[in-house]
Amino acid sequence: MKKIVTVGGGTGNFTVLRGLKNYDVDISAIVSMADDGGSTGILRDELGVLPPGDVRQCLVALSDSSRLMRSLMNYRFEQGGLGGHSFGNLLLSALEKVTGSFEKAVEEVGKILFIKGKVIPVTTHQVRLKMILRSCKILEGEREVYLSQEIDKGYSSIYLEPYPKANPHAINEIMNADLIVMGPGGLHTSLIPNLLVEGISEALRQSDAKKVFIVNLMNRIGQTAGFKVSDYLNELVRFMGEDMFDYILVNNQMPPQHLVEIYAKEGDLVENDLKDDRVRLAPLLGDLKESHKKDLIKRSFIRHDSKKLAQELMKIVDNL
Amino acid sequence: MKKIVTVGGGTGNFTVLRGLKNYDVDISAIVSMADDGGSTGILRDELGVLPPGDVRQCLVALSDSSRLMRSLMNYRFEQGGLGGHSFGNLLLSALEKVTGSFEKAVEEVGKILFIKGKVIPVTTHQVRLKMILRSCKILEGEREVYLSQEIDKGYSSIYLEPYPKANPHAINEIMNADLIVMGPGGLHTSLIPNLLVEGISEALRQSDAKKVFIVNLMNRIGQTAGFKVSDYLNELVRFMGEDMFDYILVNNQMPPQHLVEIYAKEGDLVENDLKDDRVRLAPLLGDLKESHKKDLIKRSFIRHDSKKLAQELMKIVDNL
Repeated sequence: MKKIVTVGGGTGNFTVLRGLKNYDVDISAIVSMADDGGSTGILRDELGVLPPGDVRQCLVALSDSSRLMRSLMNYRFEQGGLGGHSFGNLLLSALEKVTGSFEKAVEEVGKILFIKGKVIPVTTHQVRLKMILRSCKILEGEREVYLSQEIDKGYSSIYLEPYPKANPHAINEIMNADLIVMGPGGLHTSLIPNLLVEGISEALRQSDAKKVFIVNLMNRIGQTAGFKVSDYLNELVRFMGEDMFDYILVNNQMPPQHLVEIYAKEGDLVENDLKDDRVRLAPLLGDLKESHKKDLIKRSFIRHDSKKLAQELMKIVDNL
Repeated sequence: MKKIVTVGGGTGNFTVLRGLKNYDVDISAIVSMADDGGSTGILRDELGVLPPGDVRQCLVALSDSSRLMRSLMNYRFEQGGLGGHSFGNLLLSALEKVTGSFEKAVEEVGKILFIKGKVIPVTTHQVRLKMILRSCKILEGEREVYLSQEIDKGYSSIYLEPYPKANPHAINEIMNADLIVMGPGGLHTSLIPNLLVEGISEALRQSDAKKVFIVNLMNRIGQTAGFKVSDYLNELVRFMGEDMFDYILVNNQMPPQHLVEIYAKEGDLVENDLKDDRVRLAPLLGDLKESHKKDLIKRSFIRHDSKKLAQELMKIVDNL
């Protein structure tokens, strides 16, 4: 069975994993530990736990349990002192407290949810994402980076503090992968934070696995405005080195014009400016109707379709 | 297989169920819905859910899952907005929200915990326990009743508001039981609240089951100070009618003197003043060392031993 390893975090990762789950492959999801917004941020601050949010999404994506269990994991309390917390985050944090280990907590929730594959924190150290903008302003934490409107004006530095060692299990997965998948996802908030962990880039370079980058559909104003496919790759090169990807998966399906107009305030479509053998063009857009499904994250109506993504990835896997 | 039904709530119930779990009997725990203190009270107030605390304890008592899962259910968050909440309470409340039904939530947690038997809310209506003291003071809620120092000076009325109908499943269990077990537990806070639900006392009278009352070890000052076994029974007669119990299980083992002295501030030992065939005397005290076990509720060092209780109950069951 071929081993596919994703490196990421956030909703893009969710979409990839959800699609791959239905194939006969060995899946491991390596997940960024930089999240510090919302429920996750409160749990980090108040309980001193590792960030559960992105891990929770991966666990749900890979879950073979009932729809009820998946709904429960994503259920958010609405009122009072619990307001805003997702139940799955509380489960992971409580288990971390009871077992004394975040990795053990992730493993246990994996059992409860009958997940297919593994979910692995990229590091088990407490870290904060920091970014120094060209304006010399320092962004403290992933949430500030996520909300910044100035990143596309340039930044001088992005790093994790303190500089963390990689989780050896993450290194092991990367070294034993047949295919490594990065993207889609927030470039500075979900992808790069993995590459800032000591040993991860090195392992990615050393691994014999083929590597595929799934390019985002939309740029975000203030973050990646006007980015073309080559800009995404050039940004990753800074952290991974040259020529890391064997395949670059790019959507070539045009979303409905009215959606593009709605999104104009938030960002523009990513254009492909590469013409080399690595690029694979395919229609990858999610069906609008699908977005009403409860399990899906509703942040974006222009988004990848998990089935189409998985189909394209499996074409690559089948030729390995 | 003989069907044993407990009617109660709180830690006394936990001890009985935990012991019975190891025997080849069909167990159903009917649980009071009057709890409104601590984590349970906050969840009721903020989320409008039914009280999860007593149900959680019964579920854990009947659980055949790992020690880890049982520890998780009883884990209490210590800091921040979550401070004081037990994880199991949050699980039950989130599931009630997701499924729209507290009974369904209890059922699902029962599956997660691989419980032996059933846990059944005595009513599925939102109720508050009220008590009018002889001094005309009104106690609002189970917590106020629990903390009152004046109940043993007399009260004129105890009732649930609004007056709730029984859960039909609870009636069904009572009618089909071979043995019904009440006690040990807080007389006015765990036992009587079940009898204040419309239809429960009637069902207890109508049921062909044998009925056993397990008498508390200790009185609580302000609540049952100076009560003897007959006083407990007389109090229950007010809500159940005469001669309801076929067996009265009373401890005859003296706790270590130094513990009795420690407890003198909180209450005195319950003395047996009955001499009839219904009374079964047996050494029922828990081992002091046992109280260090994580699973046990540590409120009281003078407490029943779950194994000894279950052994005595099984002697009755074997003769049914």
